[in-house]
Amino acid sequence: MPSHILVVGSLAYDDVHTPYDSRREVLGGAASYFSLAACLYAPVRLMGVVGDDFRGSDLERLRAKGVDLAGVEHAKGRSFRWLGKYDHDLAAAETINTDLGVFGDWEPTVPPAFADSEFVFLANILPEIQGRMLEQVRAPKAVALDTMNYWIERRRDALAAVMTRVDIVTVNEAEARQFCGTHNVLKAAREILALGPRAVVIKRAEYGALLLTKDRIFWTPAYPLDEVRDPTGAGDAFAGGMLGHLARAGTFDDATLCRAVLHGTVCASFAVEDFSVDGIERADRTAIDRRVRELESLVSA
Amino acid sequence: MPSHILVVGSLAYDDVHTPYDSRREVLGGAASYFSLAACLYAPVRLMGVVGDDFRGSDLERLRAKGVDLAGVEHAKGRSFRWLGKYDHDLAAAETINTDLGVFGDWEPTVPPAFADSEFVFLANILPEIQGRMLEQVRAPKAVALDTMNYWIERRRDALAAVMTRVDIVTVNEAEARQFCGTHNVLKAAREILALGPRAVVIKRAEYGALLLTKDRIFWTPAYPLDEVRDPTGAGDAFAGGMLGHLARAGTFDDATLCRAVLHGTVCASFAVEDFSVDGIERADRTAIDRRVRELESLVSA
Repeated sequence: MPSHILVVGSLAYDDVHTPYDSRREVLGGAASYFSLAACLYAPVRLMGVVGDDFRGSDLERLRAKGVDLAGVEHAKGRSFRWLGKYDHDLAAAETINTDLGVFGDWEPTVPPAFADSEFVFLANILPEIQGRMLEQVRAPKAVALDTMNYWIERRRDALAAVMTRVDIVTVNEAEARQFCGTHNVLKAAREILALGPRAVVIKRAEYGALLLTKDRIFWTPAYPLDEVRDPTGAGDAFAGGMLGHLARAGTFDDATLCRAVLHGTVCASFAVEDFSVDGIERADRTAIDRRVRELESLVSA
Repeated sequence: MPSHILVVGSLAYDDVHTPYDSRREVLGGAASYFSLAACLYAPVRLMGVVGDDFRGSDLERLRAKGVDLAGVEHAKGRSFRWLGKYDHDLAAAETINTDLGVFGDWEPTVPPAFADSEFVFLANILPEIQGRMLEQVRAPKAVALDTMNYWIERRRDALAAVMTRVDIVTVNEAEARQFCGTHNVLKAAREILALGPRAVVIKRAEYGALLLTKDRIFWTPAYPLDEVRDPTGAGDAFAGGMLGHLARAGTFDDATLCRAVLHGTVCASFAVEDFSVDGIERADRTAIDRRVRELESLVSA
């Protein structure tokens, strides 16, 4: 029987602009991307908040994949909205506007039925809230945390404090450098590891991902794609594939973590192939396993 | 009996500035870095030109490693000098000044004793000269070519023409993008491959290297270093390790090429650990083989 995965994070509507194409008011948010990846591996329980404007059909897309939405609160007001723009290289997004809406005042409480979740993903949110979540999950096997530059700049101490209490920290390369004040990514990963987590994963976009534990450095390239259409959500789909693989395995020793990073990388590749969650929503286990094998053959000399 | 490697390229004096340290008038040049890496694998024959100011002791450093200097011309005037500066991230160098000196008018002619070289490296130099070299080497097993943005901007057609006649093109990531007018590195590599070479290697600095042949994509991370002191010459040391491995193997099928890319990556890691050629000069086969094994374990899930 596979373990349960709990995710706490945003459900959002995104406006995404690239020099090649655009989309308006499409399903986004860390919890959406994460869930649609993780649900391919193990049962997912979602905690999020939506406003009056959130379309039932979008919740249905998650429900149709077996995602347990009992932790989705419906609040008065607008849903979280993000307007972002990518340059021709489709690298870092420029945030044009963020409207937190009902997500801004949200104080999530873990439903009793979710408290026995074994694997937990605390998506990017106020570090203090991430900390309070930890107290409400009974005995998780592994808790992973993601964050972003916004919190590194404004809540560094609170973020460092919650990092000491989780098992896995996922962070993108620029954020790792910013958090640690060094360009050397290996040094930055070591510094975060020294805070206490069992594993640190540095996400490097088109350059893949780096995993560091006390005893292991593991590196994977990104899955090579002929076309990236929308990088939004890559990191959350990555976390979904990673936690998904761990939950299915029911463990997180070093060897399992390495394979989990491959699965995360592949889920991210599906996410960026299309706008919104469309790419990861279309992925299935057969396609994922094929790409994992390709990824492995890519590095075997 | 190992094959012979012929390298045609610059012997230079560099002034290198980083935010952390600097060096003045230190041994540099593509041919120096390449030779000191390649000579760890197979006999190296060097073609270059030096001015009156070139120190005998610097030629002696190469000779001491068994590099055949019969192809080094001594000309009246100053040796090639480069003044470069790196930013805090030690990524791309900013060229503050280039003084080609005697290298500017140099028209290399392959000495008869070098014409039977089996493996050839045409380091960054005027593409037309690279082309003329090809006519002077009798029956090479493999010719590799490197270039830089300067020639892509000024001699694109000549460069494309010579690319059609070589076996391996090595180019850094930014140059591949510039040459092909696309951000997607895989597409760029394919475009160069379509010109005719049997293999394209995209050098990605701290992100490793990508090899593309008709039947194979191979990717290696960079060797993880705690400290990079001077990235100058990384690409040439890479080419030295790569051609060195091919020459020792005497072949260049896909499997050998993949392993050659690992050796190139490791030679580059030694080069960037210290200023000038000091790092690669200190490397030996035992240390190289150890790092190759570490590099392989880094990617094995």
